[in-house]
Amino acid sequence: MNTKTGPFDFCLDIGGSGTRGALFDRQGHQLARAEATGGALSLGAERSQSAIRGVWGRICAQTDLGEREQKTTRLWAGIAGRGLPGQAKELAALLDDFLQCRFVADGYGALLAATGGKPGALISIGTGVAALSLDENGKTMMLSGWGFPAGDIGGGAWLGLMACSALGKYIDGVDQSPPFPIFLAQEIMEVGGRKPQQFMAWQTKAEPHMFASLAPLVIAGAKKGDQFCHNLLERSAQEIVALATALYGKKTGTVYLRGGLGVPLYPLCRRIAPSFDWQPTEADPVEGIYLLASGQAPSEQILERPNAQNG
Amino acid sequence: MNTKTGPFDFCLDIGGSGTRGALFDRQGHQLARAEATGGALSLGAERSQSAIRGVWGRICAQTDLGEREQKTTRLWAGIAGRGLPGQAKELAALLDDFLQCRFVADGYGALLAATGGKPGALISIGTGVAALSLDENGKTMMLSGWGFPAGDIGGGAWLGLMACSALGKYIDGVDQSPPFPIFLAQEIMEVGGRKPQQFMAWQTKAEPHMFASLAPLVIAGAKKGDQFCHNLLERSAQEIVALATALYGKKTGTVYLRGGLGVPLYPLCRRIAPSFDWQPTEADPVEGIYLLASGQAPSEQILERPNAQNG
Repeated sequence: MNTKTGPFDFCLDIGGSGTRGALFDRQGHQLARAEATGGALSLGAERSQSAIRGVWGRICAQTDLGEREQKTTRLWAGIAGRGLPGQAKELAALLDDFLQCRFVADGYGALLAATGGKPGALISIGTGVAALSLDENGKTMMLSGWGFPAGDIGGGAWLGLMACSALGKYIDGVDQSPPFPIFLAQEIMEVGGRKPQQFMAWQTKAEPHMFASLAPLVIAGAKKGDQFCHNLLERSAQEIVALATALYGKKTGTVYLRGGLGVPLYPLCRRIAPSFDWQPTEADPVEGIYLLASGQAPSEQILERPNAQNG
Repeated sequence: MNTKTGPFDFCLDIGGSGTRGALFDRQGHQLARAEATGGALSLGAERSQSAIRGVWGRICAQTDLGEREQKTTRLWAGIAGRGLPGQAKELAALLDDFLQCRFVADGYGALLAATGGKPGALISIGTGVAALSLDENGKTMMLSGWGFPAGDIGGGAWLGLMACSALGKYIDGVDQSPPFPIFLAQEIMEVGGRKPQQFMAWQTKAEPHMFASLAPLVIAGAKKGDQFCHNLLERSAQEIVALATALYGKKTGTVYLRGGLGVPLYPLCRRIAPSFDWQPTEADPVEGIYLLASGQAPSEQILERPNAQNG
């Protein structure tokens, strides 16, 4: 097995709903892996610290490591909300019993894991949408991810929202082409309230993940051959293609697709934009963070969004 | 002047942000008019009562009427949230010092005022969208009005939301046709935060009226000849036309347009669907409620939405 001297690399992926981490020795062996609750910086640096210490505690229990080894352990984390003013600095101060702390953007780990640290692009399509690319100069572009309801177009929450809007029109007898399927009306109303009025009250309070919970109904409807569901997924895929195009500019390349909607949208994206090399992936962000920690991937240098200065 | 015996008709239009009322004698003379804060039933029957008594108090002060006359005064109100279970009954019980209380749906007064109690249709387009029609049998259809973010398509909040989504794509360098105008990006960001990141955080917390506050920017842009703004207004008008079509079925007729977006959308609706007789209106809901009170308009009979049973 591996020496117990260190430096160890404690690599984490910290999101809003979960925190995953693994400990690696200097030879790149994974010594242990553990999970804890969400620790995004939007929840506050204290909550982030507590999630990280939760993972660390479980890893220590598995490996028989402790306080002495912690002093030779470097902490590397991709963390949601890294851009929030002052928060990452505060969190680093709370964690000064580690040898060092390095925080990168949420999503950077997944990008590195997908591309193996080489140039390429990744679009994660879950409740929201995160689109990232790594260029030949090691620079990263991060697009989408603006949040709900105006941003993350093409993601699960957006898809659910579009289905709810169309349901309202259906109930009102407003013409839609292709027609809204009755089975989808019934399935959606099962989620938020049996009567139309109840359902539409539900949507005024629903959080993004609740809208996203409707996306599998649309995917299943498309599989059954329903045209409305198919077209809605197609619109989503068009949005993803537009993001890939923005990531690559006039060039082309590999676009890894990840997240709950990655696989369902893969064949549509491939058909709409065959010039890209589309690849479904289950890239593990913690592995990507280890590539960063071990110097096998470029350190994070994020480019400004293309029109950030024109606003 | 008019007799002080009664029965008087106290007619009100009660919304979420304001309550307007007027007192009429048996000859149809308006004796006084006053306003108070919002009293929608979603705020609770106590708040509704307090708004109504606020208007009544001001009317009594103007007319020198009081407790004795209240006993011969019938209260008629179009009230937002009339469909909320039990609320209207509770409110009527709180107001039993009036001769009687009759509550109809919010919007019915405006419909009657627009059509003069005759068959016709009204679409109010403000932050939200309320579409109503009165048919030859005195029956009313009420469409849209589902709420934000999935409903009220074509209204001010929806228009602002669409503009925000497009702004996010613009900042990301995602291709849009027609292109998103730089002046609109700057104007929108003035509202919610100077930097793109601030603005997009703003939209995750913005209420419908805050999105609707962006609609005048789009209208002004369209007036300047900008194609993006024009197309967005056109989409809104298409949604309104679809509602008018749903209200009238295979027939045609007059569609009154009301609310902050009624006048801007009027020429577009007329061009898209010339078979309807489109008419801008400033119909006063209180006047419509008086038509109801005085028997000049049919009592409210609301039809189910066309596909309410298929959900």
